Order: sequence, then C-alpha cells, then structure tokens
Amino acid sequence: MTRKITPKRLQEIADEITERIAGESERGVVADYIPELAKVDLNRFGIAILPVETEECIVAGDADVPFSIQSISKVFALTLALEKVGATLWSRVGREPSGDPFNSIVQLEYEKGIPRNPFINPGAIVLADVLMDNQGPDKAIEQILGLCQRLANDQSMRIDGDVAASEMKTGGRNRALAHFMAAEGNLRGDVEDVLKIYFHQCSIAMSCRQLAMAGRFLASAGHLSGGEDPTVTPERARRINALMMTCGQYDASGEFAFRIGIPAKSGVGGGILGIVPGIASVVAWCPGLDAKGNSLLATRAFEELVRTIGWSVFGPI
Amino acid sequence: MTRKITPKRLQEIADEITERIAGESERGVVADYIPELAKVDLNRFGIAILPVETEECIVAGDADVPFSIQSISKVFALTLALEKVGATLWSRVGREPSGDPFNSIVQLEYEKGIPRNPFINPGAIVLADVLMDNQGPDKAIEQILGLCQRLANDQSMRIDGDVAASEMKTGGRNRALAHFMAAEGNLRGDVEDVLKIYFHQCSIAMSCRQLAMAGRFLASAGHLSGGEDPTVTPERARRINALMMTCGQYDASGEFAFRIGIPAKSGVGGGILGIVPGIASVVAWCPGLDAKGNSLLATRAFEELVRTIGWSVFGPI
Amino acid sequence: MTRKITPKRLQEIADEITERIAGESERGVVADYIPELAKVDLNRFGIAILPVETEECIVAGDADVPFSIQSISKVFALTLALEKVGATLWSRVGREPSGDPFNSIVQLEYEKGIPRNPFINPGAIVLADVLMDNQGPDKAIEQILGLCQRLANDQSMRIDGDVAASEMKTGGRNRALAHFMAAEGNLRGDVEDVLKIYFHQCSIAMSCRQLAMAGRFLASAGHLSGGEDPTVTPERARRINALMMTCGQYDASGEFAFRIGIPAKSGVGGGILGIVPGIASVVAWCPGLDAKGNSLLATRAFEELVRTIGWSVFGPI
Amino acid sequence: MTRKITPKRLQEIADEITERIAGESERGVVADYIPELAKVDLNRFGIAILPVETEECIVAGDADVPFSIQSISKVFALTLALEKVGATLWSRVGREPSGDPFNSIVQLEYEKGIPRNPFINPGAIVLADVLMDNQGPDKAIEQILGLCQRLANDQSMRIDGDVAASEMKTGGRNRALAHFMAAEGNLRGDVEDVLKIYFHQCSIAMSCRQLAMAGRFLASAGHLSGGEDPTVTPERARRINALMMTCGQYDASGEFAFRIGIPAKSGVGGGILGIVPGIASVVAWCPGLDAKGNSLLATRAFEELVRTIGWSVFGPI
Repeated sequence: MTRKITPKRLQEIADEITERIAGESERGVVADYIPELAKVDLNRFGIAILPVETEECIVAGDADVPFSIQSISKVFALTLALEKVGATLWSRVGREPSGDPFNSIVQLEYEKGIPRNPFINPGAIVLADVLMDNQGPDKAIEQILGLCQRLANDQSMRIDGDVAASEMKTGGRNRALAHFMAAEGNLRGDVEDVLKIYFHQCSIAMSCRQLAMAGRFLASAGHLSGGEDPTVTPERARRINALMMTCGQYDASGEFAFRIGIPAKSGVGGGILGIVPGIASVVAWCPGLDAKGNSLLATRAFEELVRTIGWSVFGPI
Repeated sequence: MTRKITPKRLQEIADEITERIAGESERGVVADYIPELAKVDLNRFGIAILPVETEECIVAGDADVPFSIQSISKVFALTLALEKVGATLWSRVGREPSGDPFNSIVQLEYEKGIPRNPFINPGAIVLADVLMDNQGPDKAIEQILGLCQRLANDQSMRIDGDVAASEMKTGGRNRALAHFMAAEGNLRGDVEDVLKIYFHQCSIAMSCRQLAMAGRFLASAGHLSGGEDPTVTPERARRINALMMTCGQYDASGEFAFRIGIPAKSGVGGGILGIVPGIASVVAWCPGLDAKGNSLLATRAFEELVRTIGWSVFGPI
Repeated sequence: MTRKITPKRLQEIADEITERIAGESERGVVADYIPELAKVDLNRFGIAILPVETEECIVAGDADVPFSIQSISKVFALTLALEKVGATLWSRVGREPSGDPFNSIVQLEYEKGIPRNPFINPGAIVLADVLMDNQGPDKAIEQILGLCQRLANDQSMRIDGDVAASEMKTGGRNRALAHFMAAEGNLRGDVEDVLKIYFHQCSIAMSCRQLAMAGRFLASAGHLSGGEDPTVTPERARRINALMMTCGQYDASGEFAFRIGIPAKSGVGGGILGIVPGIASVVAWCPGLDAKGNSLLATRAFEELVRTIGWSVFGPI
Repeated sequence: MTRKITPKRLQEIADEITERIAGESERGVVADYIPELAKVDLNRFGIAILPVETEECIVAGDADVPFSIQSISKVFALTLALEKVGATLWSRVGREPSGDPFNSIVQLEYEKGIPRNPFINPGAIVLADVLMDNQGPDKAIEQILGLCQRLANDQSMRIDGDVAASEMKTGGRNRALAHFMAAEGNLRGDVEDVLKIYFHQCSIAMSCRQLAMAGRFLASAGHLSGGEDPTVTPERARRINALMMTCGQYDASGEFAFRIGIPAKSGVGGGILGIVPGIASVVAWCPGLDAKGNSLLATRAFEELVRTIGWSVFGPI
C-alpha cells in the first residue's frame, strides 16, 4: 500500500480520469422530477481532491461549476443535529442500512415511524425537525447553509431558490413520509415547516471544490485547517463516516463499499462526496444517474481514483 | 492515530478486557434452537489478536476452547465460492445489506430468489449450491473444512457432528428458503444435499486462536505467512472485508460499523471475527447473544479493544 | 329457509337481542383517537330493522340516539361517486379485499397509489377527490349529507362539527396516505380540501333508525319507497353490496361473511349497516370495538339476528 | 327477481352462452408450469347447471370432458377437514381474503405460519396435513377422491397420475411454503407426505357434469339427493360458501363478487364451480386463464348466465 502520493501525481490522475470520463458515451440519465435538475448538461464532469494536510485542492474538469448537492446535504444536517442533541438523536432515527427502495414506506410503517438511518429521506426529515426545534424553519436553513459556508470558508455559497421552489411543489412522497412520521409521533414541528428546511438544504449549490472543502473535516478527525476549533470530535467524525459507508448511496451502499471501499454520500444532482480517513476528501460530479439514483460516472471516477491509489479502507493493495 | 502497538501492550489490553467482561452480569442469552448451543456456559469468554506480521497470537481467557463458528463459516464459503466461479457468483447473490429480520423471506420473494448478500442465510445457501456443483455434498464440506485447516495451519480442526445433526433436524426455515430459491431457479443441486453442506459448515468448531489464524489472510491482503501462495488477491480480500462491514452482523451491521468500525462477521455460537486491514485479525467469543443474534459481550470486547487502540477504519483518534 | 317473518316476530327478536346484549360484561373498547368518540357510553346499544316493503322500522334499545357513522359514510360516498363518474371510477380504485392492517401503506406503495377498494381509507379519500372535482370541498360535503338526508327522508340529520374538527387535527396517517396518492398522481385536488370532505363525511351523525332508512335502497335494488326515482340501478345496488361483503369490515370482512353472511359496513363509531338483499336493511350500534376495529356487540347482534331468521345470503337453514 | 326458471330455458341459455364463447378469439393462456396442463386445447368449453331439486343436469359444449380440477379440490378438502376436526381447524388457518400474489409468503411470515384462508395454497397444505393426521398420505388421498366420487355418485372418477407426478416435480414454491409452516409449527406431518396429498387432490380429473354433481351439496344446505345423509350441516354449507365468495378466486375474488355475485371456486385447469344457494350448482370450464389465474371465458360464461337469470346473491334484478 502506498497512501503517500504527491500533489503532482494526484493532478495527473485527476486529469486522466477527466479525460476518460469525457470519452464515455453511456452517461446515465439526469434526475427529471424537477426542471432545474433535468436541464443540467450530461457532459459536465468535475473532480476535486483535497488532502488533509494542505490548502491546495487538486481539481480537474468542471470542478468550479456549482451543482445541486441534494442528499449530500444530509451529511451536514446530521453534523448539526448531533451537535444540537447529541446521542439522543438515535432514539428518533436508526443506524442501519435500509434496503430501499422496497422499504421506503413499508419499513417506516413496520418500525413505527423510526427511519432506519439519517441518510434516507425520512431520516433526513427527522434531522430537519430536530434542527427546527424552538426556532423557525428559516433559522434552521440559515444554520445549515452557515455551517457549509464556514466549513468551505466561502461566504458566496447559496441556496438555489428555483430548485427549492420546485422541490416544494413536487415533494408529495416526502410529504407523505413526513405526515406518516407525524402521525407516529416522530415529527414535532409543523410538517410544512420541516419540509421547507429539508427542501432548502437539498437546494444548496456547491462546486466540487467547495464541497471537498466543506467535507474535509470528516477526513481529518474533525479538525479544520487554519487552527480553528474542530467541528466535531474524532469519534463523531468516525461515526458519520461509518454511516456514509453503510448507508450513503441509497440501495447501492453495499456495492459502493464493495467496489470502492471508502465512506461516501451521493445526491441526485450527480455529486458524490467521498472521505478517505486521515488522507483526503474527494468530490466527483457528473449529472447522469444510474438506476439506483447515484451518478454513473462520478461513481466510475471514484472507482478509478481510489483503486489506482489504493485508498480503500478495506486493505492494502 | 497510533496503529503501531507492541505485543506486550496488546496482551495487557486483552487481559484487561477479559477481566472486565468476567465482571459483567448481563451476558445475553445463548442460542437455544439446538441443545448443543443451548448448553454452552454463558461465562465463557475468549479473545485472540493476531497481527499480520507475526506468528505470535495474543490470547486471553478461553481463547483455546473450541466453539461453533456458525455464520462465521460464511466468510470461508464465500472465499471458496469466489475461487471456484469468480465474479459470476454475483449474478446469483447480491452485495447489499438486507434489513433483516423483516425481509428474510419478503425480500427474497421481492427479488425473485436472489438473496441480498452472501452473509444472510439464503445467500450462504446459494454459496453451498455453488460449492457443491459437480461433486457431492461431502466433497464440498471437505473443501470448506480443508480451507479452514490450511489457513489455520491446524489439521486437528473438526466439524461437530452433534451440532450438524441437530441443525439438519431443526432447519425448517432454511429449508423453506432453499426450496423457494429452487422454485425460482437459483438453486441447482438437490435441496437436502445443499442444506447438508450449509449445516455442516456452520458446525465447524474452532477456538479463538484458530479462527484468528484462519481469518488473517483478510487482514494481510490475501497473503499467508510462511511464504505460501496467497489465498486471494488483495482486491478480493478488500471486497470480502467490504461485505463483512456492510452485511456481517445481521441487522446490526450498521451499528457495528458505527460503534466499532472494522469489518467483522458474527455467528450465533457467540463468536466474532474482526479484520483490521493491514494490521491484525481479531476474534472474540462469548456465548450470550443480544436481541439481534450477535454476541453481546464479544461485541463489547471489540468496542473496547478497537477504540482503545484506534483501529477503526473510519479515521484517526 | 323462512325469510318471511312478521313485524311482530321481528320486534320480539330485536327486544330479545337488546336484552341479551345489555347483559354482556365484555363490551370491547371505544375508539379513543379523538375525545368525542372516547367519551361515548359503552353501555349504549341500539338496533333497527327496516323491511323493504314497509315504512315501519322495527327498533329496540337506543335506536334513536345519533352516533358518528364514520366509515359507514363510505357507502354513501361510493354511491355518489359512481353516480358522478360511473365505471371510470375503477381506474382509480380497486375492488379487492385488502388484508389490512398489514398492507395499509405497503400495498398502496406496491400498487402505485391505487387503493385496493373504496372502503379502506385511501380508497375513500379517492372517492372524496372524485366528489370534489370542479367544486369546492364544502359543496361535496353538502352533497354527501344531502344524499343521506334524502335517503332517510330526514332533513334534521347533521354533521357533528366537534368530531370533524378533531378528525382534522388527528388525521396524520390519512394525511400521509393522501399525500402519497397525490405523489403517485391519484389525487387531483388540494390534499387538505380532499381530507376536509373525508373527515366531514365521517362525522355525520345518525341514529340506527335513520341509517336503516338511508341504507335501505341497497336492499331494494335501488328503489326508494314512496314512488321516488330509484337512487341506483339494481345492478349498481348489487355491486355495492358485493363490495360491502368482501371489503366492508376492515380486516374482518371474511370473518363477517363466514359468521353472518350478509353485506355490511362498519364504522369505528360502533355502528354496522347490514343489507339483506330483497328483504331488509338492518343497523346495530354499540360503541365498544374489537381488536379489528369493528363493534364487538353490534357484530354479535347481527350474528344472532341473521342466523335466527336465516337471512344469510349463503344458503337456506 | 325471477329465480324460478324452467330446465328448457336453462338449456337455451347454456346453448347460447356456449355458442358465444366459441366465437371469442381472445381466450387467455393455458397454465404452462406442467406439460399436462399446457397441452389442453384452448377451444374447449363446457358448462353444466344442476338445480337443487332435480337429477337432470343441463349441459352444453364439452361438459363431459374431464379436466384437472386443481384448486377446486380445496372445497372438498375443506369439507373433509371440517368433518374431521371441526372448528378447531380455525386455529391453524384463517378466514380472511389474502391479497395475493403480493402476500403469498410475506403474509405467511407476518402471520407466523398461519395462512390467511384455506383456499390459498398454504391454507390448502394445512388442510392436507389435517387430513393426513394419524394415517398415511395414501389414505388421505383416497378419502378426498372417495368424497368426490360419493358426492358425484360416480366411481369412475380418477386422479390423473401424470398431472400428479408433474406437480410433485415442479412444486418448489409450495414446498417452500410447507417447510416454512413446518418451521413455524403449523405443519405436523412429513412435508413430502403432506405435499403428496395436496398435489394428488389437485390432480383429480372431473367433467363439468361430475363437478356440478359433486358440488351441489353446497347449494342445497348440505343435503344430498336420493335421501342420503347430508354431507354437512346447513350452517357449514353456508360457511363454506362464504369462504368461496371472499377467497375463492385468488386475488380476483372481489372482482368475481362484484361482477357475478355468487360463491365460486376456480382452478388453474380452467374450471370454476359456482354455487347459487338454494337454487343450483354451476360449473363452467375453459382452459385459457387471465392474468390472475382464473379462466377468462369460464368467468365470462358465469357472468352471462348469472346476470341473465338474476342469480346474484346480492339482490334482485
């Protein structure tokens, strides 16, 4: 195993991957449930690699083009929710993979309104409810965005209002899940307020570079660069990583662990945030999705990158 | 993070854990579906730690008392099945966590007889069918036992015939699963023959020390000590580890990843085989189970050991 | 078989049943999800028998005390919805028993938002959506109440506003079902408006006597007494009766058919409307429910009445 | 309503229906899981109507050609099982419609090995276990066949050995169900023995005429013609009819009740036995099945017959 690798070599690898991805003809399908996602160009691809010990982010392709982070936002919401209520969170949401899509509502019904984990939609809706507690939805949205800005050290980051508005309009299934949990007593705030938080956090737009910055604390045991206070304890960073490993890619989490072997979280905007513990954060983005809702080519990019370098947590090359 | 640690320090830690476990009054419940498991003494506890670079196994407690490895055998059956048919295996069994127990048969029905992963019972029954192909059940059983003996470098290892006989008698639910898969075309051999393999592999008896030896190839990228040929390629070792992480502890795999953070496989005999990639194999055994069927105190022992030393794959301390 | 029976004999039977029910100590449990239902006296019992060929209703006990008809209202909503859209209704709701409660949401998910039948809650919510089409919810509520008033020839009938308000507040699970169907495209109107209709129709209060009058058209091939126009064709009356038989008692419809053998619809207010085709409509009311949500003693009353007289549709005595 | 109808008129109606069915081009698909069923001619059609008060059976088309009665045999097995163990049967099998196919194993798992009703396969397998109790499978098979022969007053009736042999070979799914119930303690005999009974009863061959004779006791309150002892009490006949109504047509029982309105039991051999309580037994047979496994054109024939004459139990014309 060689985990040490120079920035120059990383740049070469990133460039090679970008070139190879550009040549792929089968690119998946963009999410089309809202027009803002449906119109994103399938040919976009960006990658950003940010080692823990440096400020210099290795980037290639469209790494500075903002995209909708969607479910990747659940990582930041979880970080905030744990900060707010600590381990009591786990009485309201589980820590087990879910076997979606079969179980989306089935399992919620079977388990009396307790979602299997914080990365499936009902779990993230519970997080939103936790974050709203005793403050309006707008304050909670501000906090999530604020955390991302602070982590990425970039105040220019924004929520895409059009995406948020479209999400609000088309979110019937999430609305159903939320009302179901409310009926079971696992949602305390007003359902529409809670959903407002959820839909807005999903609509945060970031570039690969920004997202690599925002997620790096998970690779560095919670430490931020520049001597700032750590965001989370090392133990909490490890635990969030564990959840990303077992639950981060919808119903393809096992597959991602099998093929790639690092904690990661995907979103239907086509982005994937990967964590190489102790080494680096990595983001790849390509809008076309596979049948399970994960980016087809961002997954491919991770596979090539991580295996070339030997970054799997599951063992040396 | 300090992953380097002296054998002396490891021995101290093992002894401390053994002492602490001895003092626990809540010890779980032994599996009682067959008399051979039901009669095992709840006070038994053993631990074995085998670093990759040495022949010297650190042990404490009842580390040399043989116990029924049960589902841990699925790791060795998987290794053999992959050797036999390679990646074509994955057309007959998936790689995703399952959300047991809710889904045991439900999900099999929903997914047309393709088990979610090789570590749930129907998945392991498919492995048995793969291993039997073109030879009788006895030959396949011999191969699994033979692999374990070779890996552990210990020809004294045996199948417990009483356990096997009891398993055969009480295995109605596994029989149902097997016939269901046969009806769906995912079992080719005679159902009773296939089950014979499955029940016999579950009845292999090993001590903590033997099992740590037998499993160490997964910590060492497939390499065996003593200059022998590697058992599996590094990539295959990583992939088996990935499956142990996402699917190794029944419906508590997410929890084990969250709390402990290393690939591991449990059995209802009370044993757990854990892999610290590149570092060591670890086995803990304590017969009392928790509600999900994993050893209550072997899990606790892993939690203390791995966190004390900082062996989680999810990040530095 | 003797289906002919004098009013005098019917009165004797009704009185005997009422007396026997009064002596029962095990009376079930009142629905307690809203205070208005929870406070109803468990000792209430009423029965009304209305032969098709007469204006004289045989009554006993509290047959003139109004109670919340709850799910029995689905019979009237179905009648109206069929009048409005005819057989096209069946593209949006099925005609098969559902196997509740296991399937409440499960099955709706499995069948893409098409409820199994119009008598389970999601089915009735679809009816409400059909009735609202192109008019506000208030107009639709007015029509349902108006139909009941006309059928019972009693303008004094009212919706219990307190019940309706409480239903609106506690209806989270129905809200979830409605949003889920909206997400699947099987609800067209505003979800809250649709639910308003549904909750208000459930809150109609009728006495046994009124309800027997209102339901009698189903026993008389759609004909109303007094020479008025028929409400429905004979074929439609038969079909509604068929649905009551196979789906009218939640997950105890098979049991009711088995023990009693006439089409009937129950409500959690404790009422049951039964139809003896060609012979009579019958209503019994007793607020205590059994484990499946049907009135324990109203069911008992039906069993005694129908078997004494030999009114089962399944064969002569 | 005119339920009285002359034999001459019945013959005319039967002839008309037979002619109309002959002209249908869309005829469904024969069951093809075993060659014996797959090779039956799609153009076959027979009908037999046997009024309760006469020995003269009205027949048309291929009413004297034997076909495999398949699931219709469950009616006779139920009759025998009730004779053998009475109401204690209901502790081992339910009386509710099942919502197949979704629930075939799901529901059995959810309900701990207690099938929903005696007409779904696991329910019928329990009946077979009841019938075998304390005697070998061959004796039980003999009893079922013997009952059919006695009811039809025809000793020439036979089990089709080729069908039975093929069923035994392909019955994996039923085998799975049986082993599952055995594991749950709801099957007491040897699984293969029990299945032998089940598969043999399904392989009884009867013509429409024979089957109408065999089933008529259900239309006549249990009475047999010719002064013989009644087969069942009137109450039991009613109850069997009730089960046929709510559970007799797999997952189209609600539909059959809705469209036709009499108790009936279908089989994948293409036959349907219908009961008009107090009036007649009716059998139609046409081998092509619809998507739910019921004969497409035998169902059509019932619809025409029963509606022409007004034989629905749900109300007068």
